[in-house]
Amino acid sequence: MKVHVVGAGPGDPELITVKGLRLIAEADIVVLDRLVPKELGGEKSVPISSLQDPVRFMAVNAREGRKVVWLKNGDPSVFGRLLEVCAELSQWGVQCEVVPGVSSAIAVPELFGIPLTLPGVHSFTVLTAVKRGREALSSKEIPRCGTLVILMGLGVIGHLKRELLKVRDPDEGVAVLSWSGESRMEAVGNLRDLDRLSSGFKPPAVIVVGEGVKKRVPFAVEEPSLNERSCLRANSVMGD
Amino acid sequence: MKVHVVGAGPGDPELITVKGLRLIAEADIVVLDRLVPKELGGEKSVPISSLQDPVRFMAVNAREGRKVVWLKNGDPSVFGRLLEVCAELSQWGVQCEVVPGVSSAIAVPELFGIPLTLPGVHSFTVLTAVKRGREALSSKEIPRCGTLVILMGLGVIGHLKRELLKVRDPDEGVAVLSWSGESRMEAVGNLRDLDRLSSGFKPPAVIVVGEGVKKRVPFAVEEPSLNERSCLRANSVMGD
Repeated sequence: MKVHVVGAGPGDPELITVKGLRLIAEADIVVLDRLVPKELGGEKSVPISSLQDPVRFMAVNAREGRKVVWLKNGDPSVFGRLLEVCAELSQWGVQCEVVPGVSSAIAVPELFGIPLTLPGVHSFTVLTAVKRGREALSSKEIPRCGTLVILMGLGVIGHLKRELLKVRDPDEGVAVLSWSGESRMEAVGNLRDLDRLSSGFKPPAVIVVGEGVKKRVPFAVEEPSLNERSCLRANSVMGD
Repeated sequence: MKVHVVGAGPGDPELITVKGLRLIAEADIVVLDRLVPKELGGEKSVPISSLQDPVRFMAVNAREGRKVVWLKNGDPSVFGRLLEVCAELSQWGVQCEVVPGVSSAIAVPELFGIPLTLPGVHSFTVLTAVKRGREALSSKEIPRCGTLVILMGLGVIGHLKRELLKVRDPDEGVAVLSWSGESRMEAVGNLRDLDRLSSGFKPPAVIVVGEGVKKRVPFAVEEPSLNERSCLRANSVMGD
């Protein structure tokens, strides 16, 4: 008995993996995290917000012989509660099989032409600005070099800017990015203006600090894949 | 005129994105980086090792109206020379369109049951142990907290261990991991034993340092997808 925990990618339904899509096709029930494109689960979709105890729901169904897929935003091992979920499932005697996905932390900057590594920049750090929904990030936790990718920053933007400026250069490039399969929005400037730049954004947004912001790639990205022309439908992998 | 730079994922051909697979199906030429599964490109495959000047080759073909895909290991924006490649292509008047992929830096730990974030661990850093093929990582560049994912560490393992021990706890968990679509190998222990643990590995290996190593998930992973049963073939997306 197992539940497949599958990364759905950063929002564009075509950015799920081939394996993820196969498992959805084979599944009886597809539990969708918030922000996961609904068309991915088709008629099998169960929004996680509709469940009182999602892990229990999945465990019970897996034990009754149904094939259950849990579709998570981005990649399941990046702020996806993977450890807790799999440990909880194992208490039900249900195993967890994880299928990696394209992480928004990497893909969102990339889709705006911002590489996380470049000549002279040999590391990047992904971090949350808010921990356990309460505590905020402190400057001690912010690396002094390399690219930073900050998630959940909008709600504590003033605090975040102050902590960043304790360890990073005010002239460093910063980008506030919002991307989904349907829309995109960006603001780019210097770190000292982070609060001003982020006004008008709604969560989830990704904040990038580092050299890659100002050295953006001369870049072309197609509009996010529309459902009509995506091969999700063309190949009938969805089985509907 | 454009070249699609596509992330092929961490080695298992089923871990490419649906969009990546569609672009391969539409392509005339698929240039494959070293380690990318050959079956992904099918008969259109051109190994990059066979080309004297890969960017020129792709630019010339794109200018002659052919659809060119460059398949890169993992994700193109993570140590993928994305900035340099796209800048070079633009000098030929050819644009770059990037399709994110599943990064090995995240997926390899994950496929061994090691989550990069967990309760109390709110960040992870991906870094190379060797820079520009010569210089090695110094302790100043190693964050004091969060999970570390280290690439290209095997060749400088003694140096790497010394630098890590300047800023991290010798009792911290460390894992040396090697994963491809066909085989897997792991060694797990304490940071103080990193050099011993890594003996017997061949590049590329991923080294993970942090709490997630000892708190590994009770975990099941199917064998890497075999070509025969993968939906690459089943759906004839490859067009052959």
